[in-house]
Amino acid sequence: MRWWGWGDPAQPPTLSEHALEFLREHVGVAEHPRPPVALGEVRVEHSSLSEDASRELRAVLGCDGNGDDDASSDGGGGGGGGGGGGRAGDGPAVRTDHADRVAHAAGKGYPDLVRLRAGEPEGAPDAVLYPSSTEQVRGVLELCARHSLAVVPFGGGTSVVGGVAPLRGEHEAVVALDMRRLAALRSLDRESLIVTVQAGMRAAELESELGRQGLTLGHFPQSFQYVSLGGCAATRSAGQASTGYGRFEQMVLGLSMAAPAGKVALAAVPASAAGPELRRVLVGSEGTLGVICELALRVRPAPAVRRYEGAFFTSFAAGVQALRVLAQEHAAPDVARLSDERETGMSLALAGSGGLKGALGRGYLGARGYGDGCLAIFGFEGETDVVEQRRRRALRLVRRHDGLPVGRSAGRAWVAQRFAAPYLRDELLTHGVMVETLESATSWSNLERLHGAVGEAIGRALRAQGTPGLVMCHVSHLYETGASLYFTFLARQREGREIEQWQAVKRAASEAIVNGGGTITHHHAVGRDHAQWLEHEVGSEGVGMLRALKERLDPAGIMNPGKLLP
Amino acid sequence: MRWWGWGDPAQPPTLSEHALEFLREHVGVAEHPRPPVALGEVRVEHSSLSEDASRELRAVLGCDGNGDDDASSDGGGGGGGGGGGGRAGDGPAVRTDHADRVAHAAGKGYPDLVRLRAGEPEGAPDAVLYPSSTEQVRGVLELCARHSLAVVPFGGGTSVVGGVAPLRGEHEAVVALDMRRLAALRSLDRESLIVTVQAGMRAAELESELGRQGLTLGHFPQSFQYVSLGGCAATRSAGQASTGYGRFEQMVLGLSMAAPAGKVALAAVPASAAGPELRRVLVGSEGTLGVICELALRVRPAPAVRRYEGAFFTSFAAGVQALRVLAQEHAAPDVARLSDERETGMSLALAGSGGLKGALGRGYLGARGYGDGCLAIFGFEGETDVVEQRRRRALRLVRRHDGLPVGRSAGRAWVAQRFAAPYLRDELLTHGVMVETLESATSWSNLERLHGAVGEAIGRALRAQGTPGLVMCHVSHLYETGASLYFTFLARQREGREIEQWQAVKRAASEAIVNGGGTITHHHAVGRDHAQWLEHEVGSEGVGMLRALKERLDPAGIMNPGKLLP
Repeated sequence: MRWWGWGDPAQPPTLSEHALEFLREHVGVAEHPRPPVALGEVRVEHSSLSEDASRELRAVLGCDGNGDDDASSDGGGGGGGGGGGGRAGDGPAVRTDHADRVAHAAGKGYPDLVRLRAGEPEGAPDAVLYPSSTEQVRGVLELCARHSLAVVPFGGGTSVVGGVAPLRGEHEAVVALDMRRLAALRSLDRESLIVTVQAGMRAAELESELGRQGLTLGHFPQSFQYVSLGGCAATRSAGQASTGYGRFEQMVLGLSMAAPAGKVALAAVPASAAGPELRRVLVGSEGTLGVICELALRVRPAPAVRRYEGAFFTSFAAGVQALRVLAQEHAAPDVARLSDERETGMSLALAGSGGLKGALGRGYLGARGYGDGCLAIFGFEGETDVVEQRRRRALRLVRRHDGLPVGRSAGRAWVAQRFAAPYLRDELLTHGVMVETLESATSWSNLERLHGAVGEAIGRALRAQGTPGLVMCHVSHLYETGASLYFTFLARQREGREIEQWQAVKRAASEAIVNGGGTITHHHAVGRDHAQWLEHEVGSEGVGMLRALKERLDPAGIMNPGKLLP
Repeated sequence: MRWWGWGDPAQPPTLSEHALEFLREHVGVAEHPRPPVALGEVRVEHSSLSEDASRELRAVLGCDGNGDDDASSDGGGGGGGGGGGGRAGDGPAVRTDHADRVAHAAGKGYPDLVRLRAGEPEGAPDAVLYPSSTEQVRGVLELCARHSLAVVPFGGGTSVVGGVAPLRGEHEAVVALDMRRLAALRSLDRESLIVTVQAGMRAAELESELGRQGLTLGHFPQSFQYVSLGGCAATRSAGQASTGYGRFEQMVLGLSMAAPAGKVALAAVPASAAGPELRRVLVGSEGTLGVICELALRVRPAPAVRRYEGAFFTSFAAGVQALRVLAQEHAAPDVARLSDERETGMSLALAGSGGLKGALGRGYLGARGYGDGCLAIFGFEGETDVVEQRRRRALRLVRRHDGLPVGRSAGRAWVAQRFAAPYLRDELLTHGVMVETLESATSWSNLERLHGAVGEAIGRALRAQGTPGLVMCHVSHLYETGASLYFTFLARQREGREIEQWQAVKRAASEAIVNGGGTITHHHAVGRDHAQWLEHEVGSEGVGMLRALKERLDPAGIMNPGKLLP
């Protein structure tokens, strides 16, 4: 992955001239492109890892005596397109070279990328560690507790809430614990549909392994191509198909965690009443209690058919009512997304002349009364006949709620772009456009109110920054009692004050969310960015419970300081 | 409810002469009936509640100065059929009278009933408290912490694992905190399908309130008629229809708990990624962290149709395969139960000449190759057309796995008796027959092995006691990755050594469960009876996490001592 952005450096640009023109008109773009600096220009302080700690780490990680472990230490170099950690699969297990440290200096949130592209990350880990066994992880944690080294568990590094920021807290130094070498599929119980994996395995890698067996996990977050399974567990991820396949926490049957104080191992059982569900405490702990090393996950038969299609509603409110009925009548598709009027308008405006726009131009929709309406995408997956039956029932309910099914081209267009947004963000940043997303969830009866309140708060905050922007939203995860709201906003960057601009908007949105009855995060996790809002969510005694657990499992407080807990 | 058993004292006996004859032949019964002693003969020590504590409790509970609070203190009296707590709805809020103390001296487990019927409970609470507000609960807890009084939260009192045993631990005295006056329906959000209730409300009461609104909770444990909703949450209950409606923990969206250290309030949100799911820590805490005072629960539209029917399989193994396919293809009925060969045989033997037996005699089944087969009950609930569609699909899969649908009479027979077992148990005890149930859950690939191992362990232990018995089992809760196993066993009681006999069998079964890869409890909770097995389930660090939470919320250790934690 690019150290300064998303994905494969060879990926071709996706921002069309047409889209850029649209942005120039509605948001404003930078006069001159703002490319990232070269890797060698990224400013990182010298590693403050002590010689003693470094030697002991090498011993624990089995690279003792390998004199060239740090051969490229602080060597820098490489162009803007170079990636860090390219050799991480088989090189030394303790690294302090520039490229590795920069590649672990931040996640993939908007402020992360702003800082990285400018060559000014807030900090970098003093070393990057690549353990290859659970025993090594435990050894590292024990050692780090002794040497007062903060530990940032690092999976795919895709956090958008500061979850992998290399904060050292009160400690001597901070290390990133990269899990990529703990990536084996340990066992597959086909009869029970349970797969056991090491937590560093990538979601995409497991999905392709399962595909060869006629199975699927069904977990497709936007970060799918890079995210690790341990990261999905640690952050309570929800994929694009969570309405059908469930949230990641619902897929976790068992897990083991290495913590500084010892190991917690919870066997995979389908259900139990044996006291509080500790599984749900380790899941969501965001690296603050320990490192998730192994996961037992529920899988499903791979679908014979994946059928995605579009529907229009006359308004967001009408679409929300339809989604509610689908969820409450247990007729929801596996993927169900409803864009509000602005997101729909933007999608149509930005679509090329083919596909979505060709089939669904304003003329076609306008003639049917859906000219300013909202686009929904419905995806059905499964056995052919079951999909057909479910689809017919769902579309009957959709029509009954004034929905207009518009066929498969809209579905295909969405599927083709489902993982594209982070790539697009890199290009927008190059053009001086801020783009950020944030999400919440609330009950059906509160959904439209929260949609209005948060959207207005973001718009107001952008205007107050002197950069009026575009604010849009979609519903993308349905539950019987409510749904998620996923906001995207774009505005011209305030050059040189990008972080301040972002903070102002983020704060306004977060306040609107918590004061409006929403959860501070539906699937991005708490990380650093939402930590100050956690107490609003769980109360002071709730925070006290989390602190008590942390004191038990991580008495020295080395695990991912500055995250989750306020 | 009867102080010495289950249910309404006016309930007519259900044990037929025919069934008694069957038991006499296969198990053995007592020569002479063994009725419970009279209430006045139940031996209970004098209350050791201090005058100071008593006065302060009365002040907190708003009955200060009411001189006759304890009018009937230690008065005893009343016949064997008399119930305790009959006036509890509106009488004094602090009680130390004999009837109240006896009514709160135990739950409804087998050893509880053996002891109560003999007039020799292990102990009794020194007082029974009836708070009528959350503030009163908090006041009581604060006061109890100060006076070193152990607190046993008491809902319906239906625990079968010693969950409400009045153990005082290291404390001066023990009080039962009866939640029946906190039983209001607080709000109903019809659009979001969320009901908010006080935790002392009975499941049956809520169900009937919801029924008037065209809604249902869908939670029907065997204790349905008496169990409180707070108790369901505290013990991670699963109802008979959990395959369709989910486990109780899946219904809880929000809750508040009063703990000695403060209040934990978690708002109702449909989903969140805001750190560890504390909701799932309070749910399942079994009164050891605090008292669940309020619950926000997901409800559903009441079904237009409830269709229950039977099917036969040639063997338990064949039936299990069919259930697995139903669950994994998302075609499972809302209620799905499969009796093993012995339970099926017993059901047919005990059925009267009508109903089940008439329609499904050995002749009919034998001629079709199902003579020694297994009976399954499938229940479908919902809209008429949806039920029909689901039913057709499910029965197609059942037939494909050698199942023989046998129509609705078997379903009707099961529905008629679905809450009857605890009544029957009272009669069996009168006839000197031990009857006990225990349950586990495991993955599909391990289900038959565990079924065999536990069944054999129970049978062996019964024989070792010189009381060979009948051991049977059913699968009754399906998951994609596995299912529950629910064992019932009957044997002649060893008169005067009933508890020792029970302990030997319970131990043998529990060891077979944990050594065989099952959870120690699928829906009965840990309570006192399973506490010694918890560490096997969650490991020493898991127990450490629970202790850390307890120290935080209940620093004086007054909450339900001797339960859950080993």
